[in-house]
Amino acid sequence: METGIFTINNVWMMVCTALVFFMHLGFSFLEIGLTRQKNTINILFKNVFIICTGLVLYYIGGFNLMYPGEFNGFLGFAGFGLPIPENGLTPDYADGGYTYWTDFLFQGMFAATAATIVSGAVAERIKLGSFMLFTLIYVGLIYPIVGSWQWGGGFLSTLGGEDAGFYDFAGSTLVHSVGGWAALVAVYLLGPRIGKFSEEGTPKAIPGHNLPLAASGVLILWLGWFGFNGGSVLSADPATTSLVLTTTCLAAAAGGIGAFFLSTVLFKNYDLTMFLNGILGGLVGITAGADLMSPLEAIAIGIIAGAIIVLAVSAIDRLKLDDPVGAIAVHLVCGIWGTLAVGIFGDKAGWAQFGYQSVGVFSTAIFCSLTAFGILFLIKKTSGIRVSEKEELEGLDIHEHGMDAYADFRMNQH
Amino acid sequence: METGIFTINNVWMMVCTALVFFMHLGFSFLEIGLTRQKNTINILFKNVFIICTGLVLYYIGGFNLMYPGEFNGFLGFAGFGLPIPENGLTPDYADGGYTYWTDFLFQGMFAATAATIVSGAVAERIKLGSFMLFTLIYVGLIYPIVGSWQWGGGFLSTLGGEDAGFYDFAGSTLVHSVGGWAALVAVYLLGPRIGKFSEEGTPKAIPGHNLPLAASGVLILWLGWFGFNGGSVLSADPATTSLVLTTTCLAAAAGGIGAFFLSTVLFKNYDLTMFLNGILGGLVGITAGADLMSPLEAIAIGIIAGAIIVLAVSAIDRLKLDDPVGAIAVHLVCGIWGTLAVGIFGDKAGWAQFGYQSVGVFSTAIFCSLTAFGILFLIKKTSGIRVSEKEELEGLDIHEHGMDAYADFRMNQH
Amino acid sequence: METGIFTINNVWMMVCTALVFFMHLGFSFLEIGLTRQKNTINILFKNVFIICTGLVLYYIGGFNLMYPGEFNGFLGFAGFGLPIPENGLTPDYADGGYTYWTDFLFQGMFAATAATIVSGAVAERIKLGSFMLFTLIYVGLIYPIVGSWQWGGGFLSTLGGEDAGFYDFAGSTLVHSVGGWAALVAVYLLGPRIGKFSEEGTPKAIPGHNLPLAASGVLILWLGWFGFNGGSVLSADPATTSLVLTTTCLAAAAGGIGAFFLSTVLFKNYDLTMFLNGILGGLVGITAGADLMSPLEAIAIGIIAGAIIVLAVSAIDRLKLDDPVGAIAVHLVCGIWGTLAVGIFGDKAGWAQFGYQSVGVFSTAIFCSLTAFGILFLIKKTSGIRVSEKEELEGLDIHEHGMDAYADFRMNQH
Repeated sequence: METGIFTINNVWMMVCTALVFFMHLGFSFLEIGLTRQKNTINILFKNVFIICTGLVLYYIGGFNLMYPGEFNGFLGFAGFGLPIPENGLTPDYADGGYTYWTDFLFQGMFAATAATIVSGAVAERIKLGSFMLFTLIYVGLIYPIVGSWQWGGGFLSTLGGEDAGFYDFAGSTLVHSVGGWAALVAVYLLGPRIGKFSEEGTPKAIPGHNLPLAASGVLILWLGWFGFNGGSVLSADPATTSLVLTTTCLAAAAGGIGAFFLSTVLFKNYDLTMFLNGILGGLVGITAGADLMSPLEAIAIGIIAGAIIVLAVSAIDRLKLDDPVGAIAVHLVCGIWGTLAVGIFGDKAGWAQFGYQSVGVFSTAIFCSLTAFGILFLIKKTSGIRVSEKEELEGLDIHEHGMDAYADFRMNQH
Repeated sequence: METGIFTINNVWMMVCTALVFFMHLGFSFLEIGLTRQKNTINILFKNVFIICTGLVLYYIGGFNLMYPGEFNGFLGFAGFGLPIPENGLTPDYADGGYTYWTDFLFQGMFAATAATIVSGAVAERIKLGSFMLFTLIYVGLIYPIVGSWQWGGGFLSTLGGEDAGFYDFAGSTLVHSVGGWAALVAVYLLGPRIGKFSEEGTPKAIPGHNLPLAASGVLILWLGWFGFNGGSVLSADPATTSLVLTTTCLAAAAGGIGAFFLSTVLFKNYDLTMFLNGILGGLVGITAGADLMSPLEAIAIGIIAGAIIVLAVSAIDRLKLDDPVGAIAVHLVCGIWGTLAVGIFGDKAGWAQFGYQSVGVFSTAIFCSLTAFGILFLIKKTSGIRVSEKEELEGLDIHEHGMDAYADFRMNQH
Repeated sequence: METGIFTINNVWMMVCTALVFFMHLGFSFLEIGLTRQKNTINILFKNVFIICTGLVLYYIGGFNLMYPGEFNGFLGFAGFGLPIPENGLTPDYADGGYTYWTDFLFQGMFAATAATIVSGAVAERIKLGSFMLFTLIYVGLIYPIVGSWQWGGGFLSTLGGEDAGFYDFAGSTLVHSVGGWAALVAVYLLGPRIGKFSEEGTPKAIPGHNLPLAASGVLILWLGWFGFNGGSVLSADPATTSLVLTTTCLAAAAGGIGAFFLSTVLFKNYDLTMFLNGILGGLVGITAGADLMSPLEAIAIGIIAGAIIVLAVSAIDRLKLDDPVGAIAVHLVCGIWGTLAVGIFGDKAGWAQFGYQSVGVFSTAIFCSLTAFGILFLIKKTSGIRVSEKEELEGLDIHEHGMDAYADFRMNQH
């Protein structure tokens, strides 16, 4: 492999790493914007905690748990820390793609994402200490183990023999659904926020307190997806990277349009939150097959994802699950949709592939929901997972942090 | 063309594409920050709508309308969608610069910008449905047609024969003035916001509600201009790209300083909004000739652009045109200035070039103002373009969207 | 040097330049978020002023003052403006690294940073005109002179002979301490804000007014550090750039964790501001030796930096110095720590190196604190440096700018 190409690949991967890092700001803004001001500092604290501990945990063991080298396909571990591999910093590493450090950092930026998805769904009522403990275990152990099944060369990657198997380009399942299942379980165990459902069970909208931040969060996430999907090519190969960015952006745009149309038809008003979540749904939906689709197929996947968002948000409400930011609809439901879409559209479409995709979805569903349930149930039974009613009503900022996010502004109480 | 250079070019163009995409957040923040909180969701909705539909329209037909291949120089169309060209994904495409997909996506990110410029000027009083309809036509048809005259190889590009003609490096005219003319026409047809002018016609400042967002919008736009101008080199050629970034940044800085000086001298206080718009004026001003100027010429163009901003904002006020964010001064007036400056400063300076530049300015002025007038006049006569007085006073957010952008904060009414 | 590598290096350096530019938004948001809303416009104005004048000053003389070519090691000047060097735009420039323009722009983006650091420390009470005057001198003269001592090939770079001397990879001392010393002197000369200390001298927290902006400022700064440190490699060399990003991110994460642990233990609540400043402390701390450290050493440097932040913020409070944003703890104290850490950890560790590092710290301390004191003392004795009590209480926004940053929101007074 030529030094020049190696260097370009590495530059592209570093740029993508920076963009994926920046997604954490997008998640933070989205989550803050769609919740109430009295819990703002709490949300920021959780997000900053996730980034910092996620990266350090990935250094300590996550990277070598996710990429264990030769292993049994279910669980392997190549050791603690980052020992420089024999062929480490030269073009021999990673098929000449990029350096060992770049590999670690790019994957490390992904790792924290799963917990961030959970953070949005459980906002405004989870105990901070319990959430931090859950994060450490889920990001440090569960995420890398599921990742190893496919990206580490595990059993999902060879379901159909050496050359065929489950396919998940950048993580509709391995990142988004992994976070989404935990979000679903956590929302179920926590119960809804006080006031979210009337005594008859009718859902009541609890408006977010800063829509400019919510919208900017979505645009920042879209920008970050240039790196999330673009970097998942694992090289700067011109044809593939540029196709991936094109399908990613078209699916995002189509997701917004799909949600916009359906929500306008159904609800007769221009719902900004649906539009925004439709964009995210399109992004999550294209993630599993961004390198396999034509632009038109990407638009189709996006429009369907946008429509799914509108229907899923309503369905989750009807199930009396309280997900303040729509994380379950976006990351879990559209994650499943995107994963299955690889069997329906694009270069790998076919019944066999649809079967592999279903196995991937199913395996992740079982493992993630069981482990998330186990961890959260244990925490619930010991230290508890939900703040007191008083704390929830007065806000977590004052109680957990002794601070006010907007000290100079007068607030409405609700 | 060597694979390595092709790959680098493509990486650079993808990075620039991401930066141009990010400008949409800058436009959104600027527009929100300089208007009132009661119209915040409406502005966000418009901007998100523009991004999503702009990109999909450019996929459907815009790209092939703007780059029709061989054509009569005024209007051509190469067909719907993105059929992969015969020499499509190889280094043969675009003179070995980058891939077909990169070409589409970079240009597609530009396309929506023109409508965004209009969005700021018509904020706080235009009917959302009418604005969306206008956007679809203007971005889908008018912008690509004007673009084809120059960047598609049309009549403007060969005004002086094969090797000479109109020059517009990154779009002082083709992007900024195209948006600016429509903004001017729309502002004229809409009329001023209630309360903007006293009965005697004295303009009254209507303060923006979130200056940190406005300022951050300008810094994000400046960052985006690294891609807007840097990517317009259409390769990663080291000498040209780095010169372009240098002239772009120096013109931005000088634009700010020019507006700061003149406004401080004239108005005796430190006016943040003028400073910010001066930076944008410098950026728009350098855009037509960023690759032709020395650093010193870039500073000169910027300072003049900054001074123009101060004078133009006042003049537009005196003409009783109500442009809440200063879009006409920034994009139209400085767009014209930057275009003409190519005939005054830099490598192409001279009377002949000045003539070509004037023809470009004039052709765009006629075509864009006539078509914008036609479209908006028709909409005005049918569905109307302005919201009711009640809706304007109470805010578009409640009436069109049924939401409040800052639900937890108490607001002053004005 | 091959064209391909030259082009890649140049692309990487341009990307890093854009990221360093973006740090100015991070600084602005951090500073706004941690202060009161009544001084918001003033802070934005200062930051925008610094960016614009910093860049133009660096064009006028700063660049050639910092890189004077052959000189006496203490003070040299290669002339005004940017005359294209003989070997200017070809791969012969900068050892084939990148172009002359890229070199200027990357370094120019660094130049303004020093003044921005001061801006945070003196917020809410300094006269705008006096601050602007100080900025012009400090950024235009002092920063480039100190820079020339090391990065321009001056006396610090050869303390131990041709091949040994002071080492400061990306500016723990040359950027952060240079700003930090001026911040310390300015805070001392200005005195604390009204109400910061009780009559008995007990410090009272003055809460910031927009914590989401503060937190996003830190995440944007972390993103910018990808360019600040990544670009300081001065090439796209894969092994070094990717190691630098890895050590930078791990130190940032560890800095946050260190401050989180120590502040939680000491203060028994989850302090978001400490967590955020811990991240910044880790970033400043790794900056001097980011290319010399292993990941584990980077984590160690970061954790210590995070702990230092908690202790330094308290100590500065006890010294009755009022630094609203913690700039002195972050940039000065952790800048010194990071500089000395090069003698303790990593490839250059040893007593001799520790000695060179101490000389660098000491020289900068003397020169910067004396010059900052001289400039500010002169300004204090002539035009004054502090606003009137009335202006401070009512806010600088109304008095200096005649504007309100959040016109539609009702405010609490404090």
